[in-house]
Amino acid sequence: MELQRFHEYFKENREKHIQELFEFLSIPSISSLSEHKQDVERAAQWLKQQLEQLNIENVSIDETEGHPVVYGEWLHAEGKPTVLIYGHYDVQPVDPLNLWESEPFKPEIRQNKLYARGSSDDKGQVFMQLKAIEALFAILGTLPVNVKFLYEGEEEIGSAHLPAYIERNKEKLAADFVLISDTSMYAPGKPAICYGLRGLAGVQIDVRGANSDLHSGLYGGGVQNAVHALVEILASFRDINGKILVEGFYDDVRPLSEEERKAFAELQFDEESLKKELGVNELFGEEGYSFLERTWARPTLEINGIFGGFSGEGIKTVLPNEAGAKITCRLVPDQDPDKIIALLRKHVEKHTPKGVTVSVTEFDNGAPYLTPFDHPLIQTASRSYEKVYQVPTAFTRGGGSIPIVATFDQILNVPVVLMGFGLSTENFHAPNEHFHLENFDKGLRVLCDYLCEVAKLKL
Amino acid sequence: MELQRFHEYFKENREKHIQELFEFLSIPSISSLSEHKQDVERAAQWLKQQLEQLNIENVSIDETEGHPVVYGEWLHAEGKPTVLIYGHYDVQPVDPLNLWESEPFKPEIRQNKLYARGSSDDKGQVFMQLKAIEALFAILGTLPVNVKFLYEGEEEIGSAHLPAYIERNKEKLAADFVLISDTSMYAPGKPAICYGLRGLAGVQIDVRGANSDLHSGLYGGGVQNAVHALVEILASFRDINGKILVEGFYDDVRPLSEEERKAFAELQFDEESLKKELGVNELFGEEGYSFLERTWARPTLEINGIFGGFSGEGIKTVLPNEAGAKITCRLVPDQDPDKIIALLRKHVEKHTPKGVTVSVTEFDNGAPYLTPFDHPLIQTASRSYEKVYQVPTAFTRGGGSIPIVATFDQILNVPVVLMGFGLSTENFHAPNEHFHLENFDKGLRVLCDYLCEVAKLKL
Repeated sequence: MELQRFHEYFKENREKHIQELFEFLSIPSISSLSEHKQDVERAAQWLKQQLEQLNIENVSIDETEGHPVVYGEWLHAEGKPTVLIYGHYDVQPVDPLNLWESEPFKPEIRQNKLYARGSSDDKGQVFMQLKAIEALFAILGTLPVNVKFLYEGEEEIGSAHLPAYIERNKEKLAADFVLISDTSMYAPGKPAICYGLRGLAGVQIDVRGANSDLHSGLYGGGVQNAVHALVEILASFRDINGKILVEGFYDDVRPLSEEERKAFAELQFDEESLKKELGVNELFGEEGYSFLERTWARPTLEINGIFGGFSGEGIKTVLPNEAGAKITCRLVPDQDPDKIIALLRKHVEKHTPKGVTVSVTEFDNGAPYLTPFDHPLIQTASRSYEKVYQVPTAFTRGGGSIPIVATFDQILNVPVVLMGFGLSTENFHAPNEHFHLENFDKGLRVLCDYLCEVAKLKL
Repeated sequence: MELQRFHEYFKENREKHIQELFEFLSIPSISSLSEHKQDVERAAQWLKQQLEQLNIENVSIDETEGHPVVYGEWLHAEGKPTVLIYGHYDVQPVDPLNLWESEPFKPEIRQNKLYARGSSDDKGQVFMQLKAIEALFAILGTLPVNVKFLYEGEEEIGSAHLPAYIERNKEKLAADFVLISDTSMYAPGKPAICYGLRGLAGVQIDVRGANSDLHSGLYGGGVQNAVHALVEILASFRDINGKILVEGFYDDVRPLSEEERKAFAELQFDEESLKKELGVNELFGEEGYSFLERTWARPTLEINGIFGGFSGEGIKTVLPNEAGAKITCRLVPDQDPDKIIALLRKHVEKHTPKGVTVSVTEFDNGAPYLTPFDHPLIQTASRSYEKVYQVPTAFTRGGGSIPIVATFDQILNVPVVLMGFGLSTENFHAPNEHFHLENFDKGLRVLCDYLCEVAKLKL
């Protein structure tokens, strides 16, 4: 059986692979800091060499207005599906450095966990994709599917230039589906296929009253207070259970299917443990939904920040003339961010109190994403995980947004399969990021199996 | 007629008086800055000398835990009322210095206005009290009433040590009333007797949800958001017209008398001009009350500041676990600050949303103050103004709080008469503070007349 042969290949080559991964992880490719621009380029060069060593063709480093994109392809599996493999080679900053137990760019293995910035997010997983291809070539002498690679260097700073790149290279990037390894498993030992993500619509609400802050003694009770006005607007957005009261907000929400609710329920999510972990007496949210349903499949409206008046120590008896709040909505299929923002504007207009003017400024937004739960690419992925992990795969949806997923969906118009091997506890974006090597070892086999199985599908 | 003789005295001595006042104003007695501690003491010494030159007796500089108090007395008007004259010799800081057109501690007269820090608040007015005494001695050879002087050096930093001083010296300070010149006239040419002040009760409300900020994608919709919870509490405090919904809040409010409402209405306060000045489309407040009634005689609840979550530029999709707001209520007779704070606590408890804990922290508070409108000391003061200014005196109440007024009321248990000669446009607490010398000249006569008339009252 092929899976066994892959297993042996990875076992034989493990030392060499880990050394190569160390090399990749030692490059401090922090995309947000201009002093690391050269390092980001070095990481791109490193990937280019790797692809070339794999006999991937037309490998190029494509400049964008920001950090470059690394592209490559191998298209000799005639009649077979084409997969576009995506990942990112940039990493988050590392401060506060003093909280790291080993240096972020000097990889170190402790208790079968690999510690380094990018080990889990996402260099470790990008590297697995490459080594899966290497193993397929080594064992099969060829690849079971056609592959295209797209590695970006700006994921950690919002993928600012990738949508334009994809748009420009739509035909070159054409594929039957996109494969991304940048998400987490459900729990240790429990793999997950994330088949849906929430979208995002964000606005800032700015309230303005008088032309300056006023003395609350001289004017208090006679002139509108901008913070009060803001508070009234914000309180009008939700009922006490978090149900959103913006007219039309839920109109386009695709209801959860019975199958999905059942799959979520089977995960037996432990709400009691979560309460303890978060230190809250009770969870909270829309009535009639479980925690997973609320966070995976229901839209939200959250105040991310609020400001106005005096916030220093002690007291200042000011009647503030300005106040503001930042709000983001997490959206679910088939809500449209632009439409939601229009509804928010209308709501604010309707609820603006006397004596102030209010402006609503839109932030970047992103569409929600869903590959149908029963899609063969999803079901096949689930089976590949199960063969290696020997437990049922969790079918999950993500409460967060990965804007690039929706971008692939919108521009290339193909399904996106999220096969991730991280764990949510691995401190990505924080000190002591690490990656469980158990999932590195198993994940390599899962990826090999998946590409072999996908070759059998008629897409 | 005596008023004419005072007039002549002040005319003859004007040059000398202005020179003396310049001397007083050149001492940078900024109480809030420790590097000016010596200057604050110099100002106290200067006052001591002035009092001694006036043959005031038992003059002393009394140390407190902060800046000293200057005391003096003259008690030879047997059978006549005793007035405790209060003022402060400390001043506000002067920054931003570059906005001053002349140096703050180099007094300068331009267009009959005296520019210097403290010229209006309060050294100029303290000086007038001293020169009124000087003139009374000069013209009458004696004083018509008994006087005690109490000048403090910490008014601009909240009079932290004065209440304890008054408490310790209750008997020494015993008087029939307190006379303060530290308020503003109603308008240029229009004097005012401020016979009431609002009190203050302040709290900070802190809301806490989970034990850290959460990712709004992973937890949004399933865990309470501290800012939302805070906003719901705050919105519950007032109706859309600013009427306070805290149970029992208005129970002890003394209603405005018909006479007071009539006196306020006669001032023909120009709400249209105020709207233009403040840049608002409409004023705002409790229905059934005019702007003056709302700000002078009705209690308020104002959010002075609010904070929580992310307030930087752009967007951060955080679900904040902490949020807070500072609130102060302006109180009117006969509301009790402690009782109001208890009501606020009860209200917050009742309106605390699910999934958060809330704490309420009390700030310093102050009682409201009112000398009855028809009190002879008030009516006499009104007539003294009218004799000099030749227009009816405005009977006003202050929307703000002068905590020391309530302190005098509470500890000494006597009426306080606020006869001020400043104008609200004189930039006290701001660059280019100035004092209209027209009111300096007229005010000196008003004070002399008042002390003579008070001598005729049976208190």
